[in-house]
Amino acid sequence: MTNLKIVLSVLVLFNVFSLSAQTRKEINIPNIPGYQTLKCDFQMHSIFSDGEVWPTVRVQEAWREGLDVIAITDPIGYHPHNKDVNEDNNRSYEIARPLAEQTGIILIRGAELYRQMPPGHLLLLFIKNANLLRRENWGEFCEEVKDQGAFLFLSNSAEQTSSSWFPEQIRLLDNSILKGVEVYKHDRYFPVAGNMANEKNLTILAGSDIKGPSGLEFPEGHRPITLVFATGRSESAVKEALLKQRTAIYFGDTLIGNEKFIVPVFKNSIEIVNNNIILEDQGVKQIRINNKSDIPFYLHRRQPSVGFSCPEDIVLKPHSTTAVELYGLSGELNQVPVLKLFYIVKNILTMKGKELSVDLGIPNE
Amino acid sequence: MTNLKIVLSVLVLFNVFSLSAQTRKEINIPNIPGYQTLKCDFQMHSIFSDGEVWPTVRVQEAWREGLDVIAITDPIGYHPHNKDVNEDNNRSYEIARPLAEQTGIILIRGAELYRQMPPGHLLLLFIKNANLLRRENWGEFCEEVKDQGAFLFLSNSAEQTSSSWFPEQIRLLDNSILKGVEVYKHDRYFPVAGNMANEKNLTILAGSDIKGPSGLEFPEGHRPITLVFATGRSESAVKEALLKQRTAIYFGDTLIGNEKFIVPVFKNSIEIVNNNIILEDQGVKQIRINNKSDIPFYLHRRQPSVGFSCPEDIVLKPHSTTAVELYGLSGELNQVPVLKLFYIVKNILTMKGKELSVDLGIPNE
Amino acid sequence: MTNLKIVLSVLVLFNVFSLSAQTRKEINIPNIPGYQTLKCDFQMHSIFSDGEVWPTVRVQEAWREGLDVIAITDPIGYHPHNKDVNEDNNRSYEIARPLAEQTGIILIRGAELYRQMPPGHLLLLFIKNANLLRRENWGEFCEEVKDQGAFLFLSNSAEQTSSSWFPEQIRLLDNSILKGVEVYKHDRYFPVAGNMANEKNLTILAGSDIKGPSGLEFPEGHRPITLVFATGRSESAVKEALLKQRTAIYFGDTLIGNEKFIVPVFKNSIEIVNNNIILEDQGVKQIRINNKSDIPFYLHRRQPSVGFSCPEDIVLKPHSTTAVELYGLSGELNQVPVLKLFYIVKNILTMKGKELSVDLGIPNE
Amino acid sequence: MTNLKIVLSVLVLFNVFSLSAQTRKEINIPNIPGYQTLKCDFQMHSIFSDGEVWPTVRVQEAWREGLDVIAITDPIGYHPHNKDVNEDNNRSYEIARPLAEQTGIILIRGAELYRQMPPGHLLLLFIKNANLLRRENWGEFCEEVKDQGAFLFLSNSAEQTSSSWFPEQIRLLDNSILKGVEVYKHDRYFPVAGNMANEKNLTILAGSDIKGPSGLEFPEGHRPITLVFATGRSESAVKEALLKQRTAIYFGDTLIGNEKFIVPVFKNSIEIVNNNIILEDQGVKQIRINNKSDIPFYLHRRQPSVGFSCPEDIVLKPHSTTAVELYGLSGELNQVPVLKLFYIVKNILTMKGKELSVDLGIPNE
Repeated sequence: MTNLKIVLSVLVLFNVFSLSAQTRKEINIPNIPGYQTLKCDFQMHSIFSDGEVWPTVRVQEAWREGLDVIAITDPIGYHPHNKDVNEDNNRSYEIARPLAEQTGIILIRGAELYRQMPPGHLLLLFIKNANLLRRENWGEFCEEVKDQGAFLFLSNSAEQTSSSWFPEQIRLLDNSILKGVEVYKHDRYFPVAGNMANEKNLTILAGSDIKGPSGLEFPEGHRPITLVFATGRSESAVKEALLKQRTAIYFGDTLIGNEKFIVPVFKNSIEIVNNNIILEDQGVKQIRINNKSDIPFYLHRRQPSVGFSCPEDIVLKPHSTTAVELYGLSGELNQVPVLKLFYIVKNILTMKGKELSVDLGIPNE
Repeated sequence: MTNLKIVLSVLVLFNVFSLSAQTRKEINIPNIPGYQTLKCDFQMHSIFSDGEVWPTVRVQEAWREGLDVIAITDPIGYHPHNKDVNEDNNRSYEIARPLAEQTGIILIRGAELYRQMPPGHLLLLFIKNANLLRRENWGEFCEEVKDQGAFLFLSNSAEQTSSSWFPEQIRLLDNSILKGVEVYKHDRYFPVAGNMANEKNLTILAGSDIKGPSGLEFPEGHRPITLVFATGRSESAVKEALLKQRTAIYFGDTLIGNEKFIVPVFKNSIEIVNNNIILEDQGVKQIRINNKSDIPFYLHRRQPSVGFSCPEDIVLKPHSTTAVELYGLSGELNQVPVLKLFYIVKNILTMKGKELSVDLGIPNE
Repeated sequence: MTNLKIVLSVLVLFNVFSLSAQTRKEINIPNIPGYQTLKCDFQMHSIFSDGEVWPTVRVQEAWREGLDVIAITDPIGYHPHNKDVNEDNNRSYEIARPLAEQTGIILIRGAELYRQMPPGHLLLLFIKNANLLRRENWGEFCEEVKDQGAFLFLSNSAEQTSSSWFPEQIRLLDNSILKGVEVYKHDRYFPVAGNMANEKNLTILAGSDIKGPSGLEFPEGHRPITLVFATGRSESAVKEALLKQRTAIYFGDTLIGNEKFIVPVFKNSIEIVNNNIILEDQGVKQIRINNKSDIPFYLHRRQPSVGFSCPEDIVLKPHSTTAVELYGLSGELNQVPVLKLFYIVKNILTMKGKELSVDLGIPNE
Repeated sequence: MTNLKIVLSVLVLFNVFSLSAQTRKEINIPNIPGYQTLKCDFQMHSIFSDGEVWPTVRVQEAWREGLDVIAITDPIGYHPHNKDVNEDNNRSYEIARPLAEQTGIILIRGAELYRQMPPGHLLLLFIKNANLLRRENWGEFCEEVKDQGAFLFLSNSAEQTSSSWFPEQIRLLDNSILKGVEVYKHDRYFPVAGNMANEKNLTILAGSDIKGPSGLEFPEGHRPITLVFATGRSESAVKEALLKQRTAIYFGDTLIGNEKFIVPVFKNSIEIVNNNIILEDQGVKQIRINNKSDIPFYLHRRQPSVGFSCPEDIVLKPHSTTAVELYGLSGELNQVPVLKLFYIVKNILTMKGKELSVDLGIPNE
């Protein structure tokens, strides 16, 4: 009659995330002059709130999906699994951190706070201790946010979009506590939030807000991403960039941000190959535009070029080359050293929600 | 100064698995005469052992991936998350069950037991109470297995493959406790286990043994599946089929099982379209074979046909039609009513591990 | 010193279309009661007019792409390759026919006639001799069309869409020469043509009008297709169906046709799996809808159901199962034997260009 | 009664290859120091021999598939379409050239000669007039090849592979007429040809030998390609590179060539990202290898590293990042500035047919 001994030693291996069997799909969005373009997701949950995965899964998913930076933002005090799971709000970070270090993912300590409107749901990054943020008293909470040096931004929901600024939010702004707004959450775009950010010079962010495995929530396409233009690949560089509004958001095929950043993202994404033919009257000059990024660009001509015609619409598919034909309409063309084309990019929006204007100059020699 | 009230009511919705945004990809493997072909996974873990997902995730994944039946088999007494998660072995079933009912997934109450070799790891299905199986005394454990009417089968590992039957295993067999063996686990095939099952007339099974999200563990292709040939779509029909060895296993492109089941699976997967041409000496008759299943079939000619030639190798891609040309080599062909072709299917194996022989008869009129 | 002898014998093989290395991708659109649903393309060119491929290529492409019936419709008298290629309008059919017979593709002898508007471009099917249709005199041409028993239909172009019936076209109608109109050509939909067909009870058709290889002209998605609801798989059955207006057209994800045909196509494409739960007040009943066809269906609720709510929009992806949840809102529901849902299918249009209304009845037991 | 006038003017447009609706998929294989890596196909047929497409189709296909250089090599004197198509061997080049110039494809004037073994089929590039090469007398043919300054190489077939050099071939070598051998044709690899090239210092080439549309002959994956390492993007640079043996061949996932070229192709395809952790005894250092090319690389460890262990097999999927973990096994590791790993790349072969050895050096700081 044998005793029931449980074999544990060999099993430890089973639980290790075997990176060697995994591949990471990089997100191809180029760096811009002076900055690295980090791909970040600043809103997601784990089993320690209403999420459905162990914290390390968030790191594995981030690694596979090509992210550089994540924050697990389990809501403080909201814990539907509390019958079965410990209610310590620091655990998700503590558990995920070793795998983040091993895989090179920058893990930001974060949290969420579910408040009634106003001020509504709040997201916190770069905190030091999530449990200390669990305060009944709002003033004490604000003090604690300041003490921890946290970056606080508004999460978004239906109520927030229908309105403008609330006094409570203004007070957070005046006290230098509120520093950003989430313009895209999970599968919803909040244009009002973009206007609010633009008006008050706040940082814009996007978050997946995933509860289940990311592959179940985004079975096709990528999750919403915050692009952070950072001086380096470190937590402090990410914080500095967030505090200086050096972000853009990327969801579906849409990119939204300040022109300082989205123009160079577009320009560095494409390469124009010129075929050495001089465009002359009645002649044809073909150029090739190679889009090296993951983002398709939908160009629409916003005004005619001088002396030649060009297509009304151009689609630059990702990782593809598109041929663009220019037809000469003027006898003076062969003296024009640079042919200028004037387009908007329909799926890149500025902070004011307008389609980005881009000018392309083609050497004519 | 406002008090910090947490808004809970609206949030409940967030945690609901919104099936309306989800699609299920059916696994196309046909039914066979008298039986439905149920697609099952009988080995997986949740957060309540060394798994990394909340139990409901297992149901969501099963629904999306086209499975009909699953069992969450958290190992009894092995609980690396016990610092944070409740150690009750009945919880995973209790938590997952409502979603299983809602989505029509048949959820079998299961468990695993990590025992040293021999007898090694054991898997249990159709149990009544997992916590009662946590016994120090082996005899008591066996009694409890019998009392609960459980279906017990051997999980597989490196040690087991190198060996034959152990006395402890034989004893389980003699006591009618051991009823099956796992022939494929996660990403490993154990041919020895197939032989053991064949020798003792045991049920063969396959299991994914997933700990993390299934999409992270099987980013390409399908997880290993047990096909159960059941008289209906119910837990009792699944149990009856398992007790009568009506299973096959399906991993990668490989199908393994008793010829009683795998021959009709193959025959019902394909449809031969005949073009009404009579094959004559020196003539050509083209047939089309349409493979309606998800499994490609790699056919290799095992002996020549009489009076005509046919291709040495035929690949029947899934969801595609393949043209096969027969060339007449005999003057008596136009009197042959049925042309017979003799092939093996290289990726279908019998219980003895041999490639399945199939004969195709083509009407010649 | 050796003489330069060209080795020809072994080379003949090189030119044979090796079907054994090819697979055919069936187009999954179901048959309807009483009729087979044949997939047809009635407009395409070869090297013998302004096309860019040898006639046999059209058969190979049709075979691979799952078509059942094609017509090569080289325009009579238009031959830009005449410096290099023979100008015989019967050659494309003669050359393609043996491969069509070998592969089971039904090859209809066809032609096109480029006429100025009115009456504009004309397409001809089931002709006997294309060269005899090359007449300078219009009256003689019409006689010849009648003599050959041809099925003549209007090809479409920008000019035709902007207008209504021309006297010349009316005359063709009155003389029972004009029998159909092309409602979709290559990549353009002509809604006016649909109205014209509806008004005069004409057959509707779609054509790819491919000149180059079909894979270059339709690198993504399928070419436009005419669905013919035929009593069998033969040229005469196709002709009979065309003469009796038993067609529908299928381009992109859109299906257009008479409700007599498109309703059963839709109904036979989907299978509703009912989960045996009786819907009661405040209860939930989930059904699964399995779409077995290649066409996604975009359903939109056109009126509320009585006693329960159902989703406003349902997307039935091809070869996928979608879950649909019904919520009980009335105490009398458990006495309702069939739950009725009222939708339109946004991508199926009737002959009048309206979105198809469909009613779904779900047994409630 | 109207006369039958054919409308031609508007139709001209139909025949134009509309590049604006087309995208080109670049082949991602990097340049190497000093040379551009041009992607070339030097064997294909058109309607002017036994091919099945108009010559311009070859340019369209090349453009779409990311090729830089092609030669249409219609066999001289072999013309199965001669009943319908003109027998002028210069026509394919003349017809294709304008589109090649418009699209930037470098079109090499080429031809093939079907000779019995020995010397067998011959391919010619950079010829001036294909018709002048049609000589009954072998000596005259050789003179003409020299006069035209053609680059002549052996095409391959079953007969050639079974044998070594024939006297006729040796004579061509001695007369400086024969300059290369085709090592891969359509779907067959001829290792013997690689040895022959290596022995005699000849240029290696690969050719698709397509007759039908390239999409029908290579429905999956890419056609076989000759990589030419050229000083620029011009016909003369291609010729110079071919004469100096600066080529490699690429078929399926396999790359074959001189180590001078394939080592830098491999090194420029990958980027190793180091995580700043110093590997110490019993420690782990993870590196990421990013493969930016289209080619997967299958690495196998050929000898152990000193002081640490590394994976036996590494698969570097295309356009993906792979994590590689190194485990410290020596106390002196923290004084080792560069960790050396020793692998072979199983799918890159040298001119001698051996798997390429590569050493990876990882900074340890």
